[in-house]
Amino acid sequence: MKKIVTVGGGTGNFTVLRGLKNYDVDISAVVSMADDGGSTGILRDELGVLPPGDVRQCLVALSDSSRLMRSLMNYRFENGGLEGHSFGNLLLSALEKVTGSFEKAVEEVSRILYIKGKVIPVTTHQVRLKMILDNRKILEGEKEIYLSQEIDQGYKSIYLEPYPKANPHAIDEIMNADMIVLGPGGLHTSLIPNLLVEGICEAICETQAKKTFVVNLMNRKGQTTFYKVSDYIKELVRFIGKDVLDYILVNDQHPPKELIEVYAEEGDLVTNDVYEDRVRLAHLLGEVEVITKTNLLKRNLIRHDSKKLAQELMKIVNHL
Amino acid sequence: MKKIVTVGGGTGNFTVLRGLKNYDVDISAVVSMADDGGSTGILRDELGVLPPGDVRQCLVALSDSSRLMRSLMNYRFENGGLEGHSFGNLLLSALEKVTGSFEKAVEEVSRILYIKGKVIPVTTHQVRLKMILDNRKILEGEKEIYLSQEIDQGYKSIYLEPYPKANPHAIDEIMNADMIVLGPGGLHTSLIPNLLVEGICEAICETQAKKTFVVNLMNRKGQTTFYKVSDYIKELVRFIGKDVLDYILVNDQHPPKELIEVYAEEGDLVTNDVYEDRVRLAHLLGEVEVITKTNLLKRNLIRHDSKKLAQELMKIVNHL
Repeated sequence: MKKIVTVGGGTGNFTVLRGLKNYDVDISAVVSMADDGGSTGILRDELGVLPPGDVRQCLVALSDSSRLMRSLMNYRFENGGLEGHSFGNLLLSALEKVTGSFEKAVEEVSRILYIKGKVIPVTTHQVRLKMILDNRKILEGEKEIYLSQEIDQGYKSIYLEPYPKANPHAIDEIMNADMIVLGPGGLHTSLIPNLLVEGICEAICETQAKKTFVVNLMNRKGQTTFYKVSDYIKELVRFIGKDVLDYILVNDQHPPKELIEVYAEEGDLVTNDVYEDRVRLAHLLGEVEVITKTNLLKRNLIRHDSKKLAQELMKIVNHL
Repeated sequence: MKKIVTVGGGTGNFTVLRGLKNYDVDISAVVSMADDGGSTGILRDELGVLPPGDVRQCLVALSDSSRLMRSLMNYRFENGGLEGHSFGNLLLSALEKVTGSFEKAVEEVSRILYIKGKVIPVTTHQVRLKMILDNRKILEGEKEIYLSQEIDQGYKSIYLEPYPKANPHAIDEIMNADMIVLGPGGLHTSLIPNLLVEGICEAICETQAKKTFVVNLMNRKGQTTFYKVSDYIKELVRFIGKDVLDYILVNDQHPPKELIEVYAEEGDLVTNDVYEDRVRLAHLLGEVEVITKTNLLKRNLIRHDSKKLAQELMKIVNHL
């Protein structure tokens, strides 16, 4: 059975995993530990636990349990002292406290949720993501970086503090993979934080696995404004070096004009400017069900379709 | 297989259930819904859920899952907005929100914890326990009643507001039982709140099941000060009427003198003054492991031994 290892965090990773889950492949998700916003941020600050949010999303994506259990994991309390906490985050944090180990907590939840494959924190050290912009401003924490509108003006450095060693299990998975999938998702907030962990870039370069980079559909304003595919690649090259990516998966399906207008305030569409064999173009957009101006859930509209994405990834894997 | 139905709540109930779990009997725990203190009270107030605390204890008592899962259910968060909440309470409350039903939440946790038997809320209505003392003071809520030091001065009435209908499943269990076990535990705060639910006393009187009352080991100061076994029976007769109890299980093992001294501030030992065939005397004390004055966990000392208690209950059941 072919082994696929995803590297990422957040919603983009969720989409890849949910799609791949339906194929006969061995999946491992190596997950960023830099999240410090919302429920996850509060749990880190108040309980001193490792960030559960991204791991929770991956666990749910790979879960074969009932719809009820998956809803429970994502359920957010709405009132009082618990407000904003997702139940799955509390489960991971309580298990970390009871077992004394975040990795054991993840294993236990994997069992409870009957997950297919494995979810592996990229590091088991407490870290903060930091960024020094060209204008010398220092952004502290993933949330602050996510909210910044100045990153596209250039940054000097991005790093994790303290500089963490990789989880040896993450290295093992990468070294034993047939394919590594990088992205999609927040470039500086979900993907790159994995590459800042000691040993991860080295493993990605050394492994015999083919590396596939799934380029985002949309640029986020102030973060990757007007980035084209070449810009995304350039950004990754900063970390993993040249000629490491074997495949670059790019959407070439155009969303309806009305939708792009709706998104104008948030960002622009990523367009392709790289014409190499390793670039694979495909229709990757999710079904657009609702386009009325009044009843518009933007987040649900311009996004990868997990089935189409998995199909394209499997085409690559099956030809390895 | 003989069917045993316990009626109660809190720690006393936990001890009975944990002991009975090891026998080949069909167990159902009918549980009080009056708790409003601590984590449970906060969840009721902030989320509007039914009180999870007593149900959680019964679920853990009957669980056949790993030690880790049982520790997780009882794990209490120690900091921040989550401080004091037990994880199991949060699980039940989140499931109540997701499923829209407290009973479904209990069923789901029963499945997750591989429980033996059933745990059944005595009512699925939101209620508050209230008490009017002889001195006209009104005590509002189980917690206030639990903390009162004046109950032994006499009370005019104790009631649930609003007056709730019983959960039909609780009635079914009582009607189909071979034995009903009442107590041990807080007389006014754990046992009697079940008897205040419409239909429960009637069912207890009508069922063919034998009724066994497990008398507490200790009186709680200000609540049942200097009560003897006859006082406990008199108190129950107020609700279920005369000649309903078939067996009265009383401890006749004397704890070490030092221990009674340690407990002096909390209450006094219950002594027997009823000499009828239905009164069964037995050694029911838990093992006393630590009696140094410096390292004394009082709560762990004068308590029922779950094995001895279950053994005595099984003697009764096996002769039915």
